Amino acid sequence: MDAAEFRRRGKEMVDYVADYLENIEKRQVYPDVEPGYLRSLIPEEAPEEAESYEDVVKDIERVIMPGAASPACTELETVMLDWLGKMLKLPEDFLAGTEGRGGGVIQGTASEATLIALLAARSKIVKLIQADHPDRSETDIISKLVAYSSDQAHSSVERAGLIGGVRMKKMPTDSKFSVRGAALQKVLEEDRAAGLIPFFFCATLGTTPSCAFDCITELGPICNAEKIWMHIDAAYAGSAFICPEFRPLLNGVEFADSFNFNPHKWLLVNFDCSAMWVKKRSDIIGAFKMEPLYLKHDHQESGNQSHWQIPLGRRFRSLKMWFVFRMYGLKGLQAYIRKHVGLAKEFETLVRADQRFEISADVVLGLVCFRFKGSNELNETLLKRINRARKIHLVPCQLAGKFVLRFAVCARTTESRHVQEAWSHISHLASELLQELPH
Amino acid sequence: MDAAEFRRRGKEMVDYVADYLENIEKRQVYPDVEPGYLRSLIPEEAPEEAESYEDVVKDIERVIMPGAASPACTELETVMLDWLGKMLKLPEDFLAGTEGRGGGVIQGTASEATLIALLAARSKIVKLIQADHPDRSETDIISKLVAYSSDQAHSSVERAGLIGGVRMKKMPTDSKFSVRGAALQKVLEEDRAAGLIPFFFCATLGTTPSCAFDCITELGPICNAEKIWMHIDAAYAGSAFICPEFRPLLNGVEFADSFNFNPHKWLLVNFDCSAMWVKKRSDIIGAFKMEPLYLKHDHQESGNQSHWQIPLGRRFRSLKMWFVFRMYGLKGLQAYIRKHVGLAKEFETLVRADQRFEISADVVLGLVCFRFKGSNELNETLLKRINRARKIHLVPCQLAGKFVLRFAVCARTTESRHVQEAWSHISHLASELLQELPH
Repeated sequence: MDAAEFRRRGKEMVDYVADYLENIEKRQVYPDVEPGYLRSLIPEEAPEEAESYEDVVKDIERVIMPGAASPACTELETVMLDWLGKMLKLPEDFLAGTEGRGGGVIQGTASEATLIALLAARSKIVKLIQADHPDRSETDIISKLVAYSSDQAHSSVERAGLIGGVRMKKMPTDSKFSVRGAALQKVLEEDRAAGLIPFFFCATLGTTPSCAFDCITELGPICNAEKIWMHIDAAYAGSAFICPEFRPLLNGVEFADSFNFNPHKWLLVNFDCSAMWVKKRSDIIGAFKMEPLYLKHDHQESGNQSHWQIPLGRRFRSLKMWFVFRMYGLKGLQAYIRKHVGLAKEFETLVRADQRFEISADVVLGLVCFRFKGSNELNETLLKRINRARKIHLVPCQLAGKFVLRFAVCARTTESRHVQEAWSHISHLASELLQELPH
Repeated sequence: MDAAEFRRRGKEMVDYVADYLENIEKRQVYPDVEPGYLRSLIPEEAPEEAESYEDVVKDIERVIMPGAASPACTELETVMLDWLGKMLKLPEDFLAGTEGRGGGVIQGTASEATLIALLAARSKIVKLIQADHPDRSETDIISKLVAYSSDQAHSSVERAGLIGGVRMKKMPTDSKFSVRGAALQKVLEEDRAAGLIPFFFCATLGTTPSCAFDCITELGPICNAEKIWMHIDAAYAGSAFICPEFRPLLNGVEFADSFNFNPHKWLLVNFDCSAMWVKKRSDIIGAFKMEPLYLKHDHQESGNQSHWQIPLGRRFRSLKMWFVFRMYGLKGLQAYIRKHVGLAKEFETLVRADQRFEISADVVLGLVCFRFKGSNELNETLLKRINRARKIHLVPCQLAGKFVLRFAVCARTTESRHVQEAWSHISHLASELLQELPH
C-alpha cells in the first residue's frame, strides 16, 4: 500500500470507527454465535497471493462483528496462529485446528513467551515429581531445579530464571556461537550427579549478538530423552522460516515443547505481536488457570487465552496479523524477507572488499557483524563516531572477546541505496579515524 | 469530542502519519536532546480546564519529535505518571520529579503490576535476610516466604503468588468485605511463630466482587512496622480518587510501597494502560535489571523503564494519557467520574424502591450489587434470563455465600435513560420469573 492509498484507506477507517460508535446501540450487547463459529468463515490457510484492501475490510462485518470482541478476538487469534504456523511449516502438533491439543497465542514480547514457557515447565516438573513423591514440597523441588540457555541468549532468558526463582546456567557455544548437544550432555550429567533437577532448555535460533543458531537437531533428542522442556526463542529469525530456503534452520522444532518468534520484528506486523506455540495447551493452562465466579461463562470448555499469559485483559492483536497476511500474501512476505537478506549480503560484500575490515560471524539473515581488523578500542572509537554523526545508528556486541559492530537491515523501506550510502559513510569515517592514528 | 470532530481530526491524523512516513529520511536518525529534555517543555501538572485538540496536537512536533521514540517515550511516561499522581494527590514520595527516588510506570494490566510488586518485594526480602545471614540460600528463604491478600482480592493476586513461587494467604474480611488490621496482626503472629517470613501484603481498594475497600489506615502501619511490602491494587476504583470527595478512600496510601490502578478502566484512556507507582525505584530495578552490551547506551544513569516490567520492548502509551488529560482537563475527568457514580446511585434508588430486591453491598462508586430477596437459585435463574435476552449484560459474584448480580456503570456514553431502561428490563424479567413460580 503506497502513501496515497494509505491516506484514502485510513480516512475510510476513521469513518468506519465513527459510524460504529454513532450506531453502537443498534448492535447486540452479546453475540449469538457458538464457540468455534469463526474458523468456518475464513480459509484454512493464508493466501499465497496478495488480496485487495477491499476484500479484507469487507470481512470485518461478515466475520468479526457477529462475534463482537469476544469470542471473535480469541477465535481469530487461534486461527491466525494456525495460519502462521502453517506458513512456517510447524509440525501439526503445534496447531490448534478443531481437535488439536496444541496451538498458538499472541504474547507481547519474546521475554514474556520465555517466562511463560519456563513457568509452565516448572509447574509440570513439580507435578511430575510430586506424583511419585507426594511428600516433597514445591519449594524444595524448585530449589533443585536448573534451567539452561546459550551464553549467547538474550538477557530476557536469564531474567526469566530470576523471576521464576530457578537456577539458570549459560551453556558454552562452539566457534559458530551455537550450543551443541555434547555441551548439554556434559552439564546434564554433572548436574544430575550433584542432585540437581534439569527441567528447561531455552534454545535460541538467531541470537541477538550475531544471529547464531543453537543446534536443535542435537539438543532436541537429548531434552526429550531427559524430560527437559525445550523452548525455542527465534524472536528475530523466526520470520525467515516462511521461506523454504531458510526453513531448514528450524529443523529440530519437532522436539520442542514451545516455540516463539516476533512477527513485529520482521514480518510487517506492528509492535507488539509475539507469536508463541505449544504442543500441549494443557501444560500452559495448568500453570496459570484461576477461575473465580466473575470469569466463569457458558463456554468454559472452549478457548480462553487469558490462561496462557500473565495479563488477564487482552487486545485484539490478531486483526493486524489478518490484515498483513492477506494484503501481502505469503509470496509478498517471502519477497520482503528475501529482499532484506539480499541487502545484508550486499553490505557483507562491501565489507569483505575492504581489506581494513573483517566479517565476524556468518551472515545468514539480515544482520552483518563486522569490525576493523584491530583493537577493540579502535572499533569502539569507530562506533562512537558513527553514532555521533547521526546519519545511521549501529548497536555493538561482544563476540569471543571482540568488540563487534552490527549492521542490521530491518526497516520496511530499506533499499540498496541506503546500504550503499551507509557503507560509504562508515568507510569515510573509518578512513578519517585511521589517518589520525600515529603510524 | 463529538463524532463530527472525530471524523475531521482522525483524517488529519492519517495525513500526519502519511506525511511522517513519506518524509522520514529528512529526520535525524538519533536525537540531539539530553536526558530530561522533555520535562521542561510541558507544564508540571495536568490542566484544570480542557484544552483544544489543536493545542495538543501541535505539541507533537515541539515536544515529542525532537526526542524521537527514545527518550521521548520514557520521558513523557515519567512526566505523565507525575501528572496523574498529582491528580490523585499521591504522597510526594511516589513522584519522580527531577530528583525523587520514586516514580511511575505504565504496565499493561493490574495483574502485571501486582506480579512486579511481589517480585520486587521477594528480591528485597531475600537481600535483606542474606545481608545478615550470607549462608542462607535464596531458595531456602523463598520457601519460607508468605504473602497476603484479601479473600475478596482479584484472582490475579493469587496467580502472582503462584508465579513467584511463594505462599499466598487469603485474609478474612469484615461485614463490609474489608480486611482489617486485627485480622492481619493475628495471622502475622501465627505465621512468624511457625517460622514463616511474612513479606508482602496486597491490599485492594475497590474489590472486583463488590467494590469494597481494605482498611489501609490500619493495615499500612502494621506492614511498615513488620517490614512487609504493602502494594495497593486499586485497578477500578483508583480513577475516582481524582475527585476530592472520593480521595479519602485512598487515605493510608502513605504507608504503601507501591500503588496501582488502571486508567484504561475508568479514566477514558484506551486499553491497555495500568499506572503503577513505587516509592523506591531502586527496589524494582534491583529485581529485574540486566545489562548486556547491546542494551548499554550513553545515558545509563537516566531512566529505562524496561527495568520496571516483564517485557523489554515498550509501546508509546503515555501519548494517549497526554491527549486525554489535556482534552478533558482535570475538571472534565472529575465530571465524568461523578456522572457515573450518580448513575449508579440512580440505579441503587430504583432497586431500593422495589421490595422484591435488596442491595448487597454499599454503593460507593459505579458498581451496584443487588439480588432478589430469595434463594441463590432464583437469582441465578434471573441472571440467565437477563443475559440471554441480550439487551444488557451482567456479571455475577458471590458475597458471603450469596449469589449476587452486579450492575456496573462503565461505558463512556452511559446516560440516565440507559439506567432507567436497564432497570425496567430487569424488573420486567423479574416479574415474569416470579409469576412462573409455584406459590
